[in-house]
Amino acid sequence: MAFLRCCDKILISGIISLMHGANKRGDTVSKEKINIGLLGLGTVGCGVCRILENNYDNIEQKTGLPLEITKVLVKDIVKDRDVELGPGVLTTDVNDIIDNPAIDIVVEVMGGTDTATCYVKKALSNGKSVVTANKDMMALYGKGLFEAAEANFADLLFEASVGGGIPIIRPLKQCLAANRIKQLIGIINGTTNYMLTKMTAEGIPFDQVLSEAQSKGYAEADPSSDIEGYDAARKLAILASIAFNSRVTLDDVYVEGITGISTTDIAYAEKLNYIVKLLGITKETPEGIEARVHPALIPTGHPLSAVKDVFNAVFVKGDAVGETMFYGQGAGEMPTASAVTADIMDAARNISKDVPGLIGCTCYKEKPVKEMGSVESKYFLRLRVLDRPGVLASITYIFGDKEVSLASVIQNQFEDNDTEAEIVMITHKVKERNLTEALEMIRHLSSVIDVCSLIRVEEDY
Amino acid sequence: MAFLRCCDKILISGIISLMHGANKRGDTVSKEKINIGLLGLGTVGCGVCRILENNYDNIEQKTGLPLEITKVLVKDIVKDRDVELGPGVLTTDVNDIIDNPAIDIVVEVMGGTDTATCYVKKALSNGKSVVTANKDMMALYGKGLFEAAEANFADLLFEASVGGGIPIIRPLKQCLAANRIKQLIGIINGTTNYMLTKMTAEGIPFDQVLSEAQSKGYAEADPSSDIEGYDAARKLAILASIAFNSRVTLDDVYVEGITGISTTDIAYAEKLNYIVKLLGITKETPEGIEARVHPALIPTGHPLSAVKDVFNAVFVKGDAVGETMFYGQGAGEMPTASAVTADIMDAARNISKDVPGLIGCTCYKEKPVKEMGSVESKYFLRLRVLDRPGVLASITYIFGDKEVSLASVIQNQFEDNDTEAEIVMITHKVKERNLTEALEMIRHLSSVIDVCSLIRVEEDY
Repeated sequence: MAFLRCCDKILISGIISLMHGANKRGDTVSKEKINIGLLGLGTVGCGVCRILENNYDNIEQKTGLPLEITKVLVKDIVKDRDVELGPGVLTTDVNDIIDNPAIDIVVEVMGGTDTATCYVKKALSNGKSVVTANKDMMALYGKGLFEAAEANFADLLFEASVGGGIPIIRPLKQCLAANRIKQLIGIINGTTNYMLTKMTAEGIPFDQVLSEAQSKGYAEADPSSDIEGYDAARKLAILASIAFNSRVTLDDVYVEGITGISTTDIAYAEKLNYIVKLLGITKETPEGIEARVHPALIPTGHPLSAVKDVFNAVFVKGDAVGETMFYGQGAGEMPTASAVTADIMDAARNISKDVPGLIGCTCYKEKPVKEMGSVESKYFLRLRVLDRPGVLASITYIFGDKEVSLASVIQNQFEDNDTEAEIVMITHKVKERNLTEALEMIRHLSSVIDVCSLIRVEEDY
Repeated sequence: MAFLRCCDKILISGIISLMHGANKRGDTVSKEKINIGLLGLGTVGCGVCRILENNYDNIEQKTGLPLEITKVLVKDIVKDRDVELGPGVLTTDVNDIIDNPAIDIVVEVMGGTDTATCYVKKALSNGKSVVTANKDMMALYGKGLFEAAEANFADLLFEASVGGGIPIIRPLKQCLAANRIKQLIGIINGTTNYMLTKMTAEGIPFDQVLSEAQSKGYAEADPSSDIEGYDAARKLAILASIAFNSRVTLDDVYVEGITGISTTDIAYAEKLNYIVKLLGITKETPEGIEARVHPALIPTGHPLSAVKDVFNAVFVKGDAVGETMFYGQGAGEMPTASAVTADIMDAARNISKDVPGLIGCTCYKEKPVKEMGSVESKYFLRLRVLDRPGVLASITYIFGDKEVSLASVIQNQFEDNDTEAEIVMITHKVKERNLTEALEMIRHLSSVIDVCSLIRVEEDY
């Protein structure tokens, strides 16, 4: 029975291969080595070359057969590089990789979205397994790429796209697979975590910390993707899709960066036993999936509060496992290359055992994404008001009308200004819509000079 | 080519199956469901039943076919239980499971070593995949069991044996597979971590904390396996074997529990910015693998220092990934059942794709284990001495002779006793043998009343 079944499976696979084009999953089982084609030889690409060279023996032992970097797509062949590759390995023609029958695994580490997606799709449709570190591509085009992978019995692995070297994709897909994930909260952008750590520990203002981060190479010349939260939002879309088995794309994620965070807010938060972090938060609720990236106050005792500098961490709560956290370096050449190479090893093992695509896309449901107005949260608010009687009363009157109740209030006089005062409040849990409407009315009170800050408080775990 | 290869593989597998007995990996590929046999229906067994019932739909979607608990081995069939199983599922005859051709996966959650090992070995030799939560069995008999699994093309999965629900075995075997692991430091016993947390936060002495832990169900009536470090040592043996690809057994691990830890030592440690934890430490050094469980001082800023109460965490350092940490609940019905069920899902997927044993034993090397005398560490020492001139000089003279140098010294007078004093010292790094020899000489000095404490200091990362 087993013989027949197995042959059947291969026969069917063989027929589909013929339908889609030549070679594909052809003679993989008889391979003596796995040929890898790299798209890109930047930081991560070089890291992968280094790991495959340095840890060659261990990698071959664990995978069962040798892995060889056979072709590498670069823009400029003659450029000096600090990794050594054999003659003829570098190419400027992508078809030497994605259309090359000898290549088994295509590793996309070139970045960008449109060109990378086009190459990856073609590689998959040629039956090649693909490993990628590209969060932008996965957050935007994950669905189509998974369909291509599935149709062609290929692996599409992307552990490095979130959290650099931290194992999080595979743990979610396999180790926590028996759980209904309730929520996932991540510090998934190292640049902003470094900046907030500095602002918290040393009281250095935003602009100065940003310059420092840029000079250290922690922030890019154009830092907008990091500080405005889009980098984290892409990663959150990927994590949410896996956690809740329903496709969440970048467009579904509410995004707010840290550009509005001041050392004043951080200092008030500390007084109230909170710390400010840029969080990616996703939860499953009866009304749909919440997916949001924004700065938030978290209690100083929470495991995420101890995640400092450029480190990342993802805190996951499941119905069976309870609370777990995955911590490590969320970026950098070698951590990211560690995750890419582990994926290459898995893809290689699957090819050698003739089960590429063993664990495919897990988005088998279609769940709605909740709009931000319906999200419930606590809020930290800082208002600048005229220092006269009745101000707090008129604010709390509006809050009462909109069902916003207060958990704590600090009123602060200014030393150099006796006509104004600062009010800091933390609300109980309330729908975002109610709070926004209340604040709109409060903003128009004659005694309110400015609503300086609104930061969500995350302590619902 | 692929056809022939595939058939060859099955043919060989078929012949081996025939050699070992009937059925085995027979018609697994044609299965419409996966039949599970549970050995034991205690806490973890009930948890597995609950998860398979509650998350049935998700589990079937992810695994590709339904999982059914077909048989459960119990001692007493009529006993009241809080999980419902169909008629005929409970059995008191183990052969209804391990010799039953219909059973695909045997889940060993009965505990103990000899009987469990015998059952698991038979199940494996019958070609059944095995999932176990049994750290004692894996730490003692892992090698033989893996050989049986490999010979019979079966999976032997044991994620739940270390760290309860925390994903750590699979991340080490797969996600960090591209790394040379340099060291692994774990808080892998919840009972002792709860006790040390209480002793630290509230200054409650050891005996009282132990009673509290027992009354809360965190410590057993006979707490020796936890407080003397053997539970942690078993888990460390398992982790070390995977981290360094060389079999480390319980006998290889140096073990020291927390029975000698006093609130006095904890208070001194705090003054010096350290916290006391029971750690499982394993490192690869040129002289061999270090594997040791003992209390240790770690700096208050270290990620492990924030791991409190019954939580566990494993801190791993790899050459590429840098520092990572895996955190969560290290025990309990549902967290442990979460890991067991995830392993069942993997084993089921492998059976359905006809690749059981896809990732087997990774101990493909034989490395020596370093003896404790050769281990280098810093040390915290507390001595009770006569309060007279020259005492410190005579101690440091001996230390100098044995190449022990001091990083810090605190001398403390007693309020109620002016003839004695307490000296607390932290040494620089030195070989354990040198320190032990020096202490033996110091112990005999007429001015030294007692060497009250010796605790290793772990800050080498």
